[in-house]
Amino acid sequence: MTKTDTITPCLLLDTARMTRNIERMRTRLQTLGVALRPHVKTCKNVDIARQLTAGQPGGITVSTLAEADYFFEHGMTDILYAVGIAPSKLPAVAERMGRGMSMRIILDHPQTASAVARAAGELGARFRVLVEIDADGERAGLRADAPELLEIATILERAGCHVDGVMVHAGGSYHCNDAEGMRRMAETERASAVEAAERLRQAGHEAPIVSVGSTPTATFAADLTGATEVRAGVHVFQDLVQAGLGVCEIDDIAISVLTEVIGHRVEDGRLLVDAGWMALSRDRGTADQSVDQGYGLVCDEAGRVLDDIIVTGTNQEHGIVGKRNGSSLNLGDFPVGTRLRILPNHACAAAAQHDGYWIVDNPDQARRWLPRCRGW
Amino acid sequence: MTKTDTITPCLLLDTARMTRNIERMRTRLQTLGVALRPHVKTCKNVDIARQLTAGQPGGITVSTLAEADYFFEHGMTDILYAVGIAPSKLPAVAERMGRGMSMRIILDHPQTASAVARAAGELGARFRVLVEIDADGERAGLRADAPELLEIATILERAGCHVDGVMVHAGGSYHCNDAEGMRRMAETERASAVEAAERLRQAGHEAPIVSVGSTPTATFAADLTGATEVRAGVHVFQDLVQAGLGVCEIDDIAISVLTEVIGHRVEDGRLLVDAGWMALSRDRGTADQSVDQGYGLVCDEAGRVLDDIIVTGTNQEHGIVGKRNGSSLNLGDFPVGTRLRILPNHACAAAAQHDGYWIVDNPDQARRWLPRCRGW
Repeated sequence: MTKTDTITPCLLLDTARMTRNIERMRTRLQTLGVALRPHVKTCKNVDIARQLTAGQPGGITVSTLAEADYFFEHGMTDILYAVGIAPSKLPAVAERMGRGMSMRIILDHPQTASAVARAAGELGARFRVLVEIDADGERAGLRADAPELLEIATILERAGCHVDGVMVHAGGSYHCNDAEGMRRMAETERASAVEAAERLRQAGHEAPIVSVGSTPTATFAADLTGATEVRAGVHVFQDLVQAGLGVCEIDDIAISVLTEVIGHRVEDGRLLVDAGWMALSRDRGTADQSVDQGYGLVCDEAGRVLDDIIVTGTNQEHGIVGKRNGSSLNLGDFPVGTRLRILPNHACAAAAQHDGYWIVDNPDQARRWLPRCRGW
Repeated sequence: MTKTDTITPCLLLDTARMTRNIERMRTRLQTLGVALRPHVKTCKNVDIARQLTAGQPGGITVSTLAEADYFFEHGMTDILYAVGIAPSKLPAVAERMGRGMSMRIILDHPQTASAVARAAGELGARFRVLVEIDADGERAGLRADAPELLEIATILERAGCHVDGVMVHAGGSYHCNDAEGMRRMAETERASAVEAAERLRQAGHEAPIVSVGSTPTATFAADLTGATEVRAGVHVFQDLVQAGLGVCEIDDIAISVLTEVIGHRVEDGRLLVDAGWMALSRDRGTADQSVDQGYGLVCDEAGRVLDDIIVTGTNQEHGIVGKRNGSSLNLGDFPVGTRLRILPNHACAAAAQHDGYWIVDNPDQARRWLPRCRGW
């Protein structure tokens, strides 16, 4: 398929920017002396995952069984399923372990540990488990000093399961206001995980794995002593939320949605484009940041950011584009048929609306397609 | 597949409720003496579309070429593509017309009309066009008295294209506060379309089609004299936004997301479930209504609404569930492994996150799968 054949809206991937993002994180983690276990829920594509794991031990992090299946079919066997396990999924996990998938699951509650222990007995499966630790009080996980930590480990080991360690995700890093805040959050994340792992070890559990991370904490951590791996995923593409946090520059954002101007109300200050929330997602992650980017920041077709033009509203297949602040541009200069690119608030959410990526920076200028896996 | 095999999260469809919704709209439009051209962007499934068009002329409304292709492959030929046409898609439209698809396109700008006229000449295609009319100032369309209306018609007819009439969508109906407001909006929608069609006819254009509608205006219109068809789509499933508007009752909502409790922080007032924004969408359409339903209203596995429990937050594959107001329930009564159903804010957006529906009300209690089409 050539560029002009592309039906809008579609998702574009600038692999030069992506490679730069991947290299930057690799260099950072080398300096800190910790391995990367990339979270592939952002890219959901095996070629990109292979680039992410190059020079690393090779393990990946997933958020669904469907991702696990897709990457396993493509030869990746070391998989951390980093969403608290739903008991009804344990037979599916056991079945995959039986086929050679080295899957680890996570949990944070004695009720779940008991369900895992029961399933282990019924299915003859020795599940490999990381206990989820909480560093920010925002979502899941046990506090590092919670008595339930040892209770869980005991329940699991009695059932023949492996307590392989701990994992923590400080999603609170997304609410930090500056680099210093993210650095402190990274230290809290690290310290919580290490404290919990130490408690397990002192109680006689091996607990070799101390898994930490998010893109913001991985970017700002000053020291990761005691952590054995870092999970980050969004860094592969970056997005406006990360730019708003100071994790990246706008110029690092590697995906965009190609769209076409389909209507015009210059007198009312708006253009209509054929990328609505179906193509951009409903994510408004920059709404609470100091610069609200609406539903996305508008660039020309070549990817150059236009002066303060954003997507101010979306319907299913309509995007409403308008000027912000004192933008110097004249919307009349973008007639019907003009192609634009939109940088997304949240790479994971925008990419999830598409079945794959068109690579835009091939030498021959033809577009190469990279598919994404889907579903659960 | 049986119920217990279902991997969570997944989308459930209660066909008894859906049938009731379809019948109610059919009866309403019969009383008003107008045909339904259902918008199938909500359901994206041909079995449901056939139920929607039963007893109607058979035409459908779509929002993407991918929908047009899918429904055409299943034998539906009369298709209104109700998003302002992007000039680059005209060759694709012409190609489909050549294969027997009776597709109508819409536009609202002389620039687009000129692009259509040019493409008609280059491709030898006599495009069939409805001019989009604006009834609420919110998105697209010409005002009914705009001089460009006749300019557009002249450009198109000179190029051998058919000016088949007008269409209007009063999306402003979603911002009405009560039935009377929606009734007035329906009348504005009708009157704008009829006025524009009359202007075309007085200028010598045939303009047989006067297409109006949205689910709220179709539900509350008192009179549709002069309209030849009504477009509505969300009514097939209904949702929390429609319930908040008074268009339906909560009990009419026919789709829900099945999820499982994966974690617990009863002391912090929250449950974690395995349905995040990937399964629910990021839509927050009730945020501006009098009752904010968060990311969805929580029901038990059988679909009974629980007392004021909503999804208060989402991450990609995590939903955070909490109590609202003075809910009488104890979150501790929903242990890990409990299955729940979540009613969505916006049916189109939630359904778009899934590849299909599991029908839950089959007599044999097995789940039957209905696929959805995707993409652009």
